[in-house]
Amino acid sequence: MHDAEQLRRVAVKVSSEAAGLLRDMACSEDLGRVITGETTVADKKAEDYIVDMLRSELESVQVISEEAGGVASRASDAPIALVDPLDGSTNYLSCITWCSVSIAFADPRSGEVLAGSVAPVYSGMPVSFSRGGGCYHGGVRFGKPGIRGSIISVYVDEPGAVEAVAGAIGRLKGLRRGFKVRSLGSAALELAYTALGYIAVFVDLRARLRNIDVAAAVGAIRECGGVVMDGRGYPLRIGVWSVERVGSVVASLDETLARIAVEGGSG
Amino acid sequence: MHDAEQLRRVAVKVSSEAAGLLRDMACSEDLGRVITGETTVADKKAEDYIVDMLRSELESVQVISEEAGGVASRASDAPIALVDPLDGSTNYLSCITWCSVSIAFADPRSGEVLAGSVAPVYSGMPVSFSRGGGCYHGGVRFGKPGIRGSIISVYVDEPGAVEAVAGAIGRLKGLRRGFKVRSLGSAALELAYTALGYIAVFVDLRARLRNIDVAAAVGAIRECGGVVMDGRGYPLRIGVWSVERVGSVVASLDETLARIAVEGGSG
Repeated sequence: MHDAEQLRRVAVKVSSEAAGLLRDMACSEDLGRVITGETTVADKKAEDYIVDMLRSELESVQVISEEAGGVASRASDAPIALVDPLDGSTNYLSCITWCSVSIAFADPRSGEVLAGSVAPVYSGMPVSFSRGGGCYHGGVRFGKPGIRGSIISVYVDEPGAVEAVAGAIGRLKGLRRGFKVRSLGSAALELAYTALGYIAVFVDLRARLRNIDVAAAVGAIRECGGVVMDGRGYPLRIGVWSVERVGSVVASLDETLARIAVEGGSG
Repeated sequence: MHDAEQLRRVAVKVSSEAAGLLRDMACSEDLGRVITGETTVADKKAEDYIVDMLRSELESVQVISEEAGGVASRASDAPIALVDPLDGSTNYLSCITWCSVSIAFADPRSGEVLAGSVAPVYSGMPVSFSRGGGCYHGGVRFGKPGIRGSIISVYVDEPGAVEAVAGAIGRLKGLRRGFKVRSLGSAALELAYTALGYIAVFVDLRARLRNIDVAAAVGAIRECGGVVMDGRGYPLRIGVWSVERVGSVVASLDETLARIAVEGGSG
């Protein structure tokens, strides 16, 4: 088994290079063609690139990913790589410059997420962590940052989601009028920016996010001293042995803000 | 009076250089300090830079802007520059990489918006137009594009805005299930991307946007063959002689989508 810091470095390297590939291909016409389900040419190209690179960087690895799916073995020594090759596909295919690549590594026996990296496709440096080894923005390690942003990140996409999140928005703006509401479209990147304190509170009550979308960024928020809850206020649990939904997600560096968001939330 | 194409080129040059300045300063700590009202150090620095540059590029110009305000004369020959030095200030100050610089030029006698440019601060090329001279993305002129994006751009920030926009979202998603809802945070940039067909429909029912926020991008949408309405479905009117609110804004390259959004809208 590799150590967590070594895995963090691999996650940063592979996510950054895949982000570069996606940046180079951005806005070309045929990338939106659907291959199967929700997987487009863009997702597939990024995933193939990442899987090849992971196999060349690590002696052994069990890949759980968007397109290929996969089921990891608890008996194996090989770390599990949870891969979202293109988080924010809709933005990417609409040429909106807010999307990311997310890679996390987990211990196949304990299920613990050991390290991960979220790399923005367009601007900015990857946000990464290793368990017990700290958080990084690019190559710079940082302690628990203050919250400098005044943004509440939400999703209002599903039927009922607008109504579900309206209560959380009202309560948070009651606390601080200056909060602004955004729905940016790459949950992995919004969560990574929550770890940096750029986004004050992340609130997704759609129960749609999957472990591959959030494992890397959730690990970073926790390593940085923040909290990540499900829609009822319990610590978010993340399974790592196959692609699965994690339910609603509320996160912040400030536990009070997260608690205010979930109070009365729809789970 | 300068011709519209000449003014377009000035708008592109000045907006692009100001975007570069903002990119260079991004995420440094003291930029969020408020000078007066909603004007921060970042807004002020960008505005000063733009005003200086406009005065050196043009023999004479009447500047209407966020910080300086101003009232233009109808008797003067000097074109009116409508300047939003930093559209999406909250994003910028939160280190969210979605914000822009918007500059439009208007005829001081007719009030007609003649040319304009919206330059993204982080990634991407400016979107510009001159009246009768076409739309440009970077240096490339384009005709009316198809809508390639599947994004509905909304704002849910004000009390009542969530409820007001829920109807429009429901009607649009009823038409096309694949539409996704985003609230990105720089109205000028979202409108510019509507002109490109990257955003399918722009819906802002808060009645908060100002002429300096939208004049350049609205001109681009119209020059590209799209429609821009107020919240009641009438063509949006834009005054140019001082900073003023324009009311709610609904825009699309596809008039049908815009009409579906406003039907039952709150104006």
